Formats: sequence, C-alpha cells, structure tokens
Amino acid sequence: MSDADELERFLADSCERIDAYFERNLPPASEPPQLLHEAMRYAVYSGGKRLRPALVFAAAHACELAPERAAPLAAAVELVHTYSLVHDDLPAMDDDDLRRGRPTVHVKFGEANAILVGDALLAAAFEELARAEVPIAIVGRLARAAGSRELVGGQVDDLAFAPERADAALVRAIHERKTAALFRFSVWAPGVAAGRPARELEALDAFGLAYGLAFQLVDDLLDGGREECSILCVADEATARVRVRDEVARALSAADAFAARGVFLRGLASAAAGRLR
Amino acid sequence: MSDADELERFLADSCERIDAYFERNLPPASEPPQLLHEAMRYAVYSGGKRLRPALVFAAAHACELAPERAAPLAAAVELVHTYSLVHDDLPAMDDDDLRRGRPTVHVKFGEANAILVGDALLAAAFEELARAEVPIAIVGRLARAAGSRELVGGQVDDLAFAPERADAALVRAIHERKTAALFRFSVWAPGVAAGRPARELEALDAFGLAYGLAFQLVDDLLDGGREECSILCVADEATARVRVRDEVARALSAADAFAARGVFLRGLASAAAGRLR
Repeated sequence: MSDADELERFLADSCERIDAYFERNLPPASEPPQLLHEAMRYAVYSGGKRLRPALVFAAAHACELAPERAAPLAAAVELVHTYSLVHDDLPAMDDDDLRRGRPTVHVKFGEANAILVGDALLAAAFEELARAEVPIAIVGRLARAAGSRELVGGQVDDLAFAPERADAALVRAIHERKTAALFRFSVWAPGVAAGRPARELEALDAFGLAYGLAFQLVDDLLDGGREECSILCVADEATARVRVRDEVARALSAADAFAARGVFLRGLASAAAGRLR
Repeated sequence: MSDADELERFLADSCERIDAYFERNLPPASEPPQLLHEAMRYAVYSGGKRLRPALVFAAAHACELAPERAAPLAAAVELVHTYSLVHDDLPAMDDDDLRRGRPTVHVKFGEANAILVGDALLAAAFEELARAEVPIAIVGRLARAAGSRELVGGQVDDLAFAPERADAALVRAIHERKTAALFRFSVWAPGVAAGRPARELEALDAFGLAYGLAFQLVDDLLDGGREECSILCVADEATARVRVRDEVARALSAADAFAARGVFLRGLASAAAGRLR
C-alpha cells in the first residue's frame, strides 16, 4: 500500500471508530427527553470530517496507545468541537442557517433547544473522559482548552474583531485559542494517557499548535475574506502561504520524535497544506 | 451559642470561603479578554445565597473533609449553577431582564457574550475539579448532573411543560433533574472526596434528593403560579405542604447517618421548610 492509501485507510478507520463509539455511548434518541437527544445526535452526526478524532488516533498510534483507549479522548474533543459549532451558529452569534448544507441545530430544533444542546454536548465531553477514567490532568487540559482562556476567549475576541484595528499578534492570538487549542489537546491527551515522557508530550503539543495554526491559515486562504478575523487582514496571500509552509514544517519536525510511528501525524500535517493546491 | 446562631455563623463562613476561593481562582477581570472575565465575575458575584456551596461544606463537616478540600467542589457546583442561570435568562429561554434586582448578563454584556459566559463557566467548573485532583468519579457525576440526563434534560422538559397535560410524575421528574441533581452532587461529592463508605454515600445522596425536592416545592409554594412547572399544577396547597414536610423528614433522617457531625445538614434541611412560615 502507498503512503497515501495508508493515510486514506487510517482516516476511514478513525471515522468508523468514532461514529461507533458515539453510537454506543451517546444517549439514544429514544431516551427522554427525546427531542434533546435527537438534536444532540443531529449535531454530532453532521457529516464533519472528524479531523480532531483523527489527530487523537494518529497521536495514539505514535504513542502506542490502543485505539480503544484513545476513543473516549477522541469523543470528548469532538463533542467540545461540536458544542462550539452549535453555539457559534446561533442567531446572536454568527447567525448561520446552514452547516454543511443542512439546517443548523437552532433552525431545525429552535433556539432554546440549540443553546441547551450545546450545553449538554459540553457536559457530555467530560462524562466521556470520566467514563474512561483518564488521568485528571486530561480533564483539566480539556476544560482549559474549552474555557475562557482558550476556545471561548478566542471566540469573544473573534466576535469583537475589527479588521482596521487588527495586527498580526492579535490574529495569531485568536487563531491559537479559537482553533489550535483543541488540536493541541487532541494530540497531547493520548500521550498523557499512554504515560509518555515530558519530552514527547512537548513534541505532541508543538505538533498540535503548528498543525492548528496551519489549518486555520489554510482556512483563511481558502475563504479569502478580509472582513472577519483572517491572516489576510494583516498579510498578503504570498506571505500567508509561506507561513502555512513554515507551520507544516514545524509540525513535521515535531512528529520526528516518534520516528516511524509518527506516520499518521506526518500524513495529516502534509494533508493540511494539501487543501490549498 | 444556640443552634440557630451556629447555623448562621456556618452559613456566613461558607459564603466567605467560597467568595475568597473564587477571588483567588477565577481569571481576574484584568486578564484578556477582559470583557469576558468581567462578565464571568459579574455572574458569579450576583448576590446569590450560595446554598449549594453551603451544602458542600455541611456535608464536608459531616464527613470530616477539611474545608480547603471541599472548596473546589463548592466552586464547581456553584459555577454549574451560575452557568445555568445565565443561559436560562437568555431571550430565547426565560427572557429575564433582571436577576436579584440587577440586569441579567445578556442585558449588561449582550446576548452573544452571555452565551459564551455560560459556556466558559461550565468549562471552569471542570477546571476547578481538575485543579483539586479530585477522584475521577466526581468529574463523571458532575458532568452527568449538568448534562442531558439531569440539569439540561430537566430544563428542556420545563420549557416544553404544558400545565393542562401535566401529572405528578412529570412534575417530580422535572424537579428531580432541574433542581435536585445539583443538590445531590453537592452533598455526595464531599463524601467521595473523603473516602467514606458506600452506606454513607447513599445517605448523602438520599439527603440531597430529599433536600432538593423540598427546596423546589417550597419555591413553587412561594411563587404560587400555575402556568409553569409547579407542584401546584398537580396538587393543592395543603397537599404540597405535606409533601414538603415529608421530604424534610426524609432529609433529616438521612442526616442521622452522621450523628452529631450531621448538625449543619440538619440545620439546612430544617431551614428549607422555614422559608414557608
């Protein structure tokens, strides 16, 4: 099998694994309150790429953590990501009616339910971590990543973003918190669960940060807009492309700490820039 | 000192302790994003009675858990309670402009920020548990109490509540999840943190359930309304008062498992009914 085929297979396996995990562990839509549980599943099964779970499984492979032990970490981070999308789409926030071609949760289930669905998804993330009896440091790291200093803080600054007053440091600070925080958690947590040494945890964290920044820069370039927070508000396209290359190179170099077992981390990092071509 | 004086003193100490804990551990309002951290503190310092923290400290006293070890549990449950109030007040939910005589968070800071403040408070609850390195079962229990099967689930059923189709079982099911779940956590968690035997954990849980139901029944009686979910939709006032007495008796009897050390649990249970006189 070629490297590309192997990565393709790995991504398909990751998706299958996380969907099976959700199927088994999320409250069934038949359990009261049915509307809430149906809406939670609607949000979770929304045709997303499951990129964060893929990163969890890639880091688990690098750290020799069994996929069954990685699955609850993957579920937790995907639940946090999903909650943030449900709340971001609300009328008071980005006011989006469609996500991946389907009505957003508040359009389909009403605004009050969408707020509560997001809340329940966030709580469910911590329920999954507890079910798996992960080291408590992992709970702390996810709570921080989801909270006012990272994900939510980035979102607040993003909402208040004014292109005419932006500089490169602000754009990067928003990218780090709004986007990179959950990617960092995704690759760091399997290392902690596997009991890997500090040196490797640092490599995983560096990988997650570089990957997350590259991912967001590519998103900005593909989007092309300059009204919302974007690298294009503070740099031209050529400069932004150089920054993507730099971050991908940083991610690849961090993955070297795992030699051959870093194969899927390297594959994902290379694929991040691939979206641009 | 009389029992009443001793309870008064205990309640004042609990308030002081939890406020000092928040002061030390919540992100300062001077830390960016300032608006978010200021709004989180506005929500947390809202003049609430700190009843859930008081229950945590009362159970900690019963279980001989040092107050410093109980404080993070008290903070976590108060943060979950506070997040739920911020989201409940939103225009899409109860649409309240005032809470305890002050503008609600969305009136003062805008709707988008209020959604994000609630999200950040919920995440912060788990950050506090992790900071204190509590047993992972406590994380799981709080996540469950805050999630779709308890707090959020009760809220969804409360929003969909129709008095003309209500029966006693539905009203009780809403009270159990919307109100009693966090009280149960409040008294159970200190027992787990103190490593108490299963028999005592069961007594604490029974206390929390009975206390929570009594608290909500008293609220319903004081409110007097029959349009929203209330015991008065399915029972007359005299019957409701008998139910309060029964639940308080159940709570007092559960507190007996702790003999003299149950003093503050008993005091709080008696005070719950006292609001009616």
